Amino acid sequence: MDREDYLERLEATTGDPDDFFEHVEQRSAAGQTHYVLTAARHGVERGTVIVEESDTVVRGYPSVPRVLMLDPGIPSFFEESDTVAIEEKLDGFNVRIAVAGDDGSDPLAFTRSGYVCPYTTARARDRLPLEDFFADHPTKTLCTELIGPETPYTTHDYEGVDSHEFRVFDVRDRESGDPVSVADRRTLCTEYGFSQPRFFGHSEPSAAVKTVRDAIDDLDAAGREGIILKSADGESMVKYTTESQHHEELAYAFSLPFEHGRDFLFSRIVRDAFQAAELDDTDDRIRERAQDLGESILCPMVSTIRDVQDGEPVGERHTVRGDPDAIDALLEHLDEQSLTIDRQSDRREDGERVVEFMKVAESSRDRIRYYLDGGTRDE
Amino acid sequence: MDREDYLERLEATTGDPDDFFEHVEQRSAAGQTHYVLTAARHGVERGTVIVEESDTVVRGYPSVPRVLMLDPGIPSFFEESDTVAIEEKLDGFNVRIAVAGDDGSDPLAFTRSGYVCPYTTARARDRLPLEDFFADHPTKTLCTELIGPETPYTTHDYEGVDSHEFRVFDVRDRESGDPVSVADRRTLCTEYGFSQPRFFGHSEPSAAVKTVRDAIDDLDAAGREGIILKSADGESMVKYTTESQHHEELAYAFSLPFEHGRDFLFSRIVRDAFQAAELDDTDDRIRERAQDLGESILCPMVSTIRDVQDGEPVGERHTVRGDPDAIDALLEHLDEQSLTIDRQSDRREDGERVVEFMKVAESSRDRIRYYLDGGTRDE
Repeated sequence: MDREDYLERLEATTGDPDDFFEHVEQRSAAGQTHYVLTAARHGVERGTVIVEESDTVVRGYPSVPRVLMLDPGIPSFFEESDTVAIEEKLDGFNVRIAVAGDDGSDPLAFTRSGYVCPYTTARARDRLPLEDFFADHPTKTLCTELIGPETPYTTHDYEGVDSHEFRVFDVRDRESGDPVSVADRRTLCTEYGFSQPRFFGHSEPSAAVKTVRDAIDDLDAAGREGIILKSADGESMVKYTTESQHHEELAYAFSLPFEHGRDFLFSRIVRDAFQAAELDDTDDRIRERAQDLGESILCPMVSTIRDVQDGEPVGERHTVRGDPDAIDALLEHLDEQSLTIDRQSDRREDGERVVEFMKVAESSRDRIRYYLDGGTRDE
Repeated sequence: MDREDYLERLEATTGDPDDFFEHVEQRSAAGQTHYVLTAARHGVERGTVIVEESDTVVRGYPSVPRVLMLDPGIPSFFEESDTVAIEEKLDGFNVRIAVAGDDGSDPLAFTRSGYVCPYTTARARDRLPLEDFFADHPTKTLCTELIGPETPYTTHDYEGVDSHEFRVFDVRDRESGDPVSVADRRTLCTEYGFSQPRFFGHSEPSAAVKTVRDAIDDLDAAGREGIILKSADGESMVKYTTESQHHEELAYAFSLPFEHGRDFLFSRIVRDAFQAAELDDTDDRIRERAQDLGESILCPMVSTIRDVQDGEPVGERHTVRGDPDAIDALLEHLDEQSLTIDRQSDRREDGERVVEFMKVAESSRDRIRYYLDGGTRDE
């Protein structure tokens, strides 16, 4: 592999291939060798993949900063002359779909960390008009959110989504990562028939504050995640989330306290506190938010402790449905990532295979068992 | 300094002086050179001090493990044949008082991390019958809790303590750290006139569970910290705390979220969740605890955000009273520890000097200011 050439094409901020490639992991996927950047390094996004056989680079999706105060967060983040597009941010699984090679065939679904998920790949090929799109745009990446209650990664419910669906929220150049403008991307999606996230309008940055506040009110009431703001060219992005999302994430984290509790905790509280300081107009409203926050932390944890007491399994429950082989490939894929999978049911429904499984939360199960048995904690 | 000799006397688990002494810091205190162990290492407690001039070792106070479940935590922690003494654990500042040298004079007050606090030293000499005690027991350490609303370190209120007082909860050999038995220590304290923490009785370990539950109920209702259980010989110790203590600590931590929030958070939630699982008998009771937990996290943080918005100072407020020179020495001592002290008032009352000051919380002030000004957060 000509490592220096790839370094240049990635526009990495280091000229030393060793510096960069020490963070690159070699994996086999889809019958090829993938070189995957496992963490953001030297200006290149985590999950960036090099496929040497076809001389392809699939750029990782950039991390999106967050404002804690809409005002002055939004006007100070964008240029005064920017037109800002406001769209819904969905709670699902970020999946990039791209082709390795130039003939537009055999698109793959890459997770945020650069794994090819065989199941998501099969579902994307089945559900989305990928052939048409990649025939015309073989060097683009479709950035999608896999949403709905039946995915192997997330389970957030969306009205009208019974199993799972894809939403295209970005179209980027596969190698440079440069986005298509918001307007062109929305037109492209309509043209090819891709579903997209809800659009709340566009405006100059300071006027966007009011639009976002209203949108956040509506989304919060509907238990939805939040919004993302983009400059018209798609280059600058910033996000903001709802109270219900903060609390839902905490409830998830504290149902598996020794897997996710510590990492999730502080950041969600910070978001909630600044949101309260900006948007809650009375002390009663703040107290109500605080009580709800407390319930989302403590109640799921007590419930998981009781499950361990009762000998119930502890973990994340998922349902997947689709082609039997793709589901086998998924279970094998999860297994390769050292997850312990407990298959709970496996049946046929309308010609599809439906598997319910649990990703067993071994840390939570074992730590809780230890403390329940009288184990001590040294702090 | 004969480092190998000290290593042997400390019964360190390493024979290599370099291994041990790399964690030792040299400080000047009370006109002598103190060698202080800054972290627990090789079986020796943090805050252990060697005073070479007088060939003295003052052992650090051991860290006390915690049970999360009273049952089976208590019976499984102790030997079945142990008699367990149950005493109140006080929310104050752990201060060891010991003499450097063998003549029993000039006792010093050492903080948990091995600093000599000049103010606490002066107060201890003033308030406690140290001369009598150390004349008879020059090689003992008095392990005390400095409690009350007026101390430079903690501010928890105790009924009947208007300013500050000392409680002796342990008497140990200065060098080996071996404790005097609980019964002998309580007798010694009575004999010399030292106040001590409340005693809830003693019993075999499994019977202690009920005593502790009742004690915790009472202490929780009074907003007090918790209990400590010790084997009769004082060697084995384990602690357990009240819901009100968990929430009070969170409220303190989240009034200074970017100083203490992250560190305090997870452990207090873990304590509260296991306590709820063991002691709360209805879902309503758990929900009430959860709501109170949420309020203790979010409300102080929102209040601090508002203070920063209003340009108010942010930090820990303390009041100290006593000898003018001792207070000067204290302020200098805090300054040497790189704390920013904002003196808010300085007056005379009944012949004593009373200073109110704030330990300025620069991280919280600056982070909050940054986010209020629209700063983004990358996660």
